[in-house]
Amino acid sequence: MRSDALANRRDLVSAASGLLAEQGAGMSLRAVAQAAGVGVGTLYRHFPSRVDLLTAVLEDVVERLTAHLERFIEGDEPAAERWLRLSRALADEELANLLAARDSLGPDEGPPPERMAEAERVIMALTDRAVDLARRDGLVADGVGGHDWFTGLLIVTRPPLPALEAYVSEQRDWLLRVYLRGLRPD
Amino acid sequence: MRSDALANRRDLVSAASGLLAEQGAGMSLRAVAQAAGVGVGTLYRHFPSRVDLLTAVLEDVVERLTAHLERFIEGDEPAAERWLRLSRALADEELANLLAARDSLGPDEGPPPERMAEAERVIMALTDRAVDLARRDGLVADGVGGHDWFTGLLIVTRPPLPALEAYVSEQRDWLLRVYLRGLRPD
Repeated sequence: MRSDALANRRDLVSAASGLLAEQGAGMSLRAVAQAAGVGVGTLYRHFPSRVDLLTAVLEDVVERLTAHLERFIEGDEPAAERWLRLSRALADEELANLLAARDSLGPDEGPPPERMAEAERVIMALTDRAVDLARRDGLVADGVGGHDWFTGLLIVTRPPLPALEAYVSEQRDWLLRVYLRGLRPD
Repeated sequence: MRSDALANRRDLVSAASGLLAEQGAGMSLRAVAQAAGVGVGTLYRHFPSRVDLLTAVLEDVVERLTAHLERFIEGDEPAAERWLRLSRALADEELANLLAARDSLGPDEGPPPERMAEAERVIMALTDRAVDLARRDGLVADGVGGHDWFTGLLIVTRPPLPALEAYVSEQRDWLLRVYLRGLRPD
């Protein structure tokens, strides 16, 4: 692909990811093209169907999560710093919204089930690995698995209910740090 | 009021509270009467308007929260036990849903603003008091106020997104305990 075509593709996936999180899987493709600053024709050239676009979003998310997790696993700064940075980076991905969007998809409307399952497998293997390393560094108590940590993180950092937004403001990062502290061994 | 009338009133408020949390402020009054096992006429005799019913729900919630908080404040079992029990009791009130329902109300559709403000004042004073006591018992770090604790608790225990429900199952109480542990001083 030529570099401007690649840039368009990247912008389309990024716009789709944002609108998907905001509006759910029923997002308008016209709005996606507009947010990416390209015409609808360009969108369809890259992604002939909505499923193609959603599959590209899934792969993009997996790539970003993998990058965050590998940066933690392979990094050489102090473990506590890397652990906080990883947790914040994952929180910023607003995965709860993407999961909600995924659940609003009918059968055959989303990426092929085997791609979804593979994505989950890859991420879960990496979170298990990350939590094992964090445990070795005294950051996570025994008995806490990658899965526990990851879903807990999603719950603790998912966007506040409108009803709570007024109360929460800068509480999100505070709560994230309380959560990480609570995971440490006694 | 006669005791059967009192019982009807109590059942109506409790049914309204449940449906409000499930369906938001647009809940059907017919459904409320049905869930309380009384006729719609009985509902209207107790609560001539939707606002009257919602005001009764507000007062009922405040009464329950007050009871939980006072049980903690005045109790004489070990503080750590009372603190966990209080947190679980508040979590079980599903306040996040009630707050969301409150936010779905238009102006003049809910309890009078001064009643709402008074309710908030009463609860916030008690949570501040509870957190001060918990701090004295080494259960809460300096710098954490009643407000932080309470909103954090609501976020950590609010009902999972449907997307997360499959992952969470019995994780809610686990996460609550991680949260409480994270609040302790280092």
